[in-house]
Amino acid sequence: MACERILIIGGGVLGPKVACRLKRLKPEWDVTVIDQQEEIAYSACGIPYYISGDVGELQGLMTASFQMVRSPEFFEDAKDVRIKTRTQALALDRQAKQVRVRQVETGAEEKLSYDKLVLATGRRPKPLNVAGAELPGVVSVATLMQAEAVKRRISQGEVAKAVIIGASPRGLEMTAAVSDLWGVETTLVEPGSQVLPGLLDVPLARMVQYEVQCRGVQVFLEESVQEILAAPGEHSLEVITSTHRLPADLVIVALGAEPRTELAVSAGLLASPNGGLLVNQRLQTSDPDIYAGGGCIEYPHLLTGKTIYFPETSLAHRQGRVIGTNIAGGYATFPDIVGSFTLKVFDLGVAGTGLTLETARNEGLTAEAALVVQQDHAHFYPTQELIYLQLVVDSSSRRLLGAQGISPNGDAVVGRVNSIAALLGQHGNLEDLAHLEVAYSPPYATALDIVNTVANTAENLVTGFNQSISLTEFQRLFLEEARDDVICLDVRGAANAAPFVARFPERWLNIPQETLKYRFKEVPRDKRLILICNAGMRSYEALRQLQTQGFDNAVGLQGGVAALKKAGILTLE
Amino acid sequence: MACERILIIGGGVLGPKVACRLKRLKPEWDVTVIDQQEEIAYSACGIPYYISGDVGELQGLMTASFQMVRSPEFFEDAKDVRIKTRTQALALDRQAKQVRVRQVETGAEEKLSYDKLVLATGRRPKPLNVAGAELPGVVSVATLMQAEAVKRRISQGEVAKAVIIGASPRGLEMTAAVSDLWGVETTLVEPGSQVLPGLLDVPLARMVQYEVQCRGVQVFLEESVQEILAAPGEHSLEVITSTHRLPADLVIVALGAEPRTELAVSAGLLASPNGGLLVNQRLQTSDPDIYAGGGCIEYPHLLTGKTIYFPETSLAHRQGRVIGTNIAGGYATFPDIVGSFTLKVFDLGVAGTGLTLETARNEGLTAEAALVVQQDHAHFYPTQELIYLQLVVDSSSRRLLGAQGISPNGDAVVGRVNSIAALLGQHGNLEDLAHLEVAYSPPYATALDIVNTVANTAENLVTGFNQSISLTEFQRLFLEEARDDVICLDVRGAANAAPFVARFPERWLNIPQETLKYRFKEVPRDKRLILICNAGMRSYEALRQLQTQGFDNAVGLQGGVAALKKAGILTLE
Repeated sequence: MACERILIIGGGVLGPKVACRLKRLKPEWDVTVIDQQEEIAYSACGIPYYISGDVGELQGLMTASFQMVRSPEFFEDAKDVRIKTRTQALALDRQAKQVRVRQVETGAEEKLSYDKLVLATGRRPKPLNVAGAELPGVVSVATLMQAEAVKRRISQGEVAKAVIIGASPRGLEMTAAVSDLWGVETTLVEPGSQVLPGLLDVPLARMVQYEVQCRGVQVFLEESVQEILAAPGEHSLEVITSTHRLPADLVIVALGAEPRTELAVSAGLLASPNGGLLVNQRLQTSDPDIYAGGGCIEYPHLLTGKTIYFPETSLAHRQGRVIGTNIAGGYATFPDIVGSFTLKVFDLGVAGTGLTLETARNEGLTAEAALVVQQDHAHFYPTQELIYLQLVVDSSSRRLLGAQGISPNGDAVVGRVNSIAALLGQHGNLEDLAHLEVAYSPPYATALDIVNTVANTAENLVTGFNQSISLTEFQRLFLEEARDDVICLDVRGAANAAPFVARFPERWLNIPQETLKYRFKEVPRDKRLILICNAGMRSYEALRQLQTQGFDNAVGLQGGVAALKKAGILTLE
Repeated sequence: MACERILIIGGGVLGPKVACRLKRLKPEWDVTVIDQQEEIAYSACGIPYYISGDVGELQGLMTASFQMVRSPEFFEDAKDVRIKTRTQALALDRQAKQVRVRQVETGAEEKLSYDKLVLATGRRPKPLNVAGAELPGVVSVATLMQAEAVKRRISQGEVAKAVIIGASPRGLEMTAAVSDLWGVETTLVEPGSQVLPGLLDVPLARMVQYEVQCRGVQVFLEESVQEILAAPGEHSLEVITSTHRLPADLVIVALGAEPRTELAVSAGLLASPNGGLLVNQRLQTSDPDIYAGGGCIEYPHLLTGKTIYFPETSLAHRQGRVIGTNIAGGYATFPDIVGSFTLKVFDLGVAGTGLTLETARNEGLTAEAALVVQQDHAHFYPTQELIYLQLVVDSSSRRLLGAQGISPNGDAVVGRVNSIAALLGQHGNLEDLAHLEVAYSPPYATALDIVNTVANTAENLVTGFNQSISLTEFQRLFLEEARDDVICLDVRGAANAAPFVARFPERWLNIPQETLKYRFKEVPRDKRLILICNAGMRSYEALRQLQTQGFDNAVGLQGGVAALKKAGILTLE
């Protein structure tokens, strides 16, 4: 190919990545990136940490790894890429292969010709469509300028109360950012029935929610915002929800993102009914001279085959390389998405990949879930923390479908989730995970790692060899319905069980597992039994013993008392 | 099947695991474990942490996760497994299906019949075959009793100087254990040419060695022990090596382990020439009624197809489940080994999986390696640490062959290595790793994670698009041979480069990468150029620029100055 003109619309993550890759492959080509903002290539995902104070200076979000500021001059000098900031794309003429652009300050318009075009127009926050959403103090904190303004207000003591709308990852990150370090009295309002909807199943979501509540944040679920009012009093805003009136100095809208595709759609490029541009595996749009990636596209999910909108920054990075390679004349494809994510919620690491149990079942899969609670490091090693890990599997095919975990040791839970993501990407099944050869040493793992354990536990469940209920089922059966014929058999030691026996004298029985084989006669045969231990291992042992004795009325509680406590469902002791 | 008698020889890791799994599957069966020691099912891998003081009480290594001591009574009561300790297996009569055993204290012998036998006889330390190896004070610290004795001596101040023989994982763990907390003056003697031979390639091994040396430990490589003498003076022992006489109060032999197979071999079971028992995928020995796993077997390596001896505790756990399932009448197979490992060396996490570059090439593979240095977390996030990760790939097939990494954040490097191990197990290639969908959030990862970066770097190398040398090649070319026609072109900022330019005025040139496009004329065309930056990214950028200008005399330095410093090869600044 002769020297080509490559035009890239969008200077966020994907655009600069494509440009740099292309220039390394085709140094003589003419590569231009335009963006309507002044700042480009900054780490928008770092904004909550700038707000919280973990990142002191805004500059921190604008540098590359080795302190180089990612300015237009940097791209010009270090990468030989031309960047035009404050330049808005107005219209795309695919026939003429031209984009009409306007310089925001001067209003001057020009037409830029391209041989290949890259749409890196990204995402924008989903708007809150209620009256008052445009009031000052109601923000989405999506750009550096917004971040700077919010941090200035908070650090100057102008924000005593905040309302965060949406328990999305960004919503939870912002909740922690404003309430933890700054002590802002914070309320989190989520229209759905759980935090992190679509990303976590209810048991894990309850644990995250409880962590947030324990930090003094009010959490309202199934609560929709109806209006925001300007208030004359101490706090300048009032958020009107279905059941509350919440005074606030700051309202942060975090309802997720949506693709920015007007330009492409006006030019007739194909988009999904949900709005994301459709691309093939080489990341070409319906016009083969136009590529797209990052926050403005949808892409197939490996486990459902359906396109989803999953605008993760790291995907944009990897897609950028694929687009660069393809435009340069190479051949690269992008694999289907498995949906890996992580976030930090106060001091809790949260991570997941693949499908939730709920999503999997909604997709018509015969899915089961196993929740295991286990140490990240050897139980005798001083640094150990618990990991709560749920695995979702197809019980017919035994194929792995997804996993979700939390732990104060975020690196540890992310590592486990990533290794499961690797297997998901390879169409792995339960045996692959049960035998996954993870590295062991007491400071970093247990001899049988939680990823192996959770696969074994799931296998025992799908073979029907173990029977268990989730903590949400426990809550309904034992706490809400509180039926006389459902009792807990606590197989821990007497000291652990005592407060529970005292609280539920008729319905909480204690027989330590190591004494059970001598005490079968004490176990009622006419009740439904929920077997409970600390984390689910000894209750499984007890279940097997009882089944041998002809008890067919018992199930174990997944995750045991550890899970109940972590989710704030039963917090005695 | 009717009720069967299952006999298990060995109460370490594998034996109890088989027993417990079996009893859950077949509660009515008669399952007995014999062991010649008093203590069973303890965490021998925890011994270094007991010695160091990280684990205060020996008891800690003998408990299960929830404080239950793994005593014979515990197994009897909680697991319904019979344990006979202090019981030695003398002879195996496969025809009669009997094992003759002796009670160590009383000398009483009896014959135990079995329907299925499990050999869980484990490993023992490789002996040091020199005169004086049996002297008091020369120990391998493989058992709890030895550990207790050593810790007593150290804590009572009886050990001022120690010599550790063997830079194996255990050797390095014991080095840290005695020198770090207790301040014992320690010398590490390794017969091979590097620490962790077979597990790390030289660049990473040098980094681990430097970490050890920085903690005040003397390290002697290619040094063989010839004799140990009882010494009359201040220190009770003297270790005579090829070039030194080392006084010591304690000598720890850590030359690795070997399989304990006398019983099996005498009974005619097949073993490899190296000594490990041979088993099929169901872990049956050459006698189908006899199973074996853990430290006494060899097993095929996935990447070479050859059996290897790899007695990792976590493998024993997983193999135990497979054996239990198979004996109970199920069908389970154990996959080929990829060789994942990790250890902590002082405050450095070390982990690896698959083949080293050296091993891969010795196996006749066309292997290449890429070393990348990158943050574990977003570079702007306060907790970030560097990870040094080397990937080994087959440059013909692009198949992944292995990875090795170090980082102060052990959880982070273990997580990366595990996700690569997952791909190795699935015969993954470079594209699989380049696109591995790892989870991203600034507190736990970088937007383009090091596992993706190292795959991209390796891809650039195998396509010939990037050319680089390792730090050992740098050491030879630039430091040892110090040839006039080899110069470094440092593309970092002037302040970083200054001390190097001062040290090598004729051979170290500084042109910051972002100015290179204006200064090509200053770059010599008649010399071989080693391009250097902090970690290898900007030198790659510079390489591409120079190639465009017709320079064909340049290569980058893998890992840049960061790697040189970490390995103690060049520590200016």
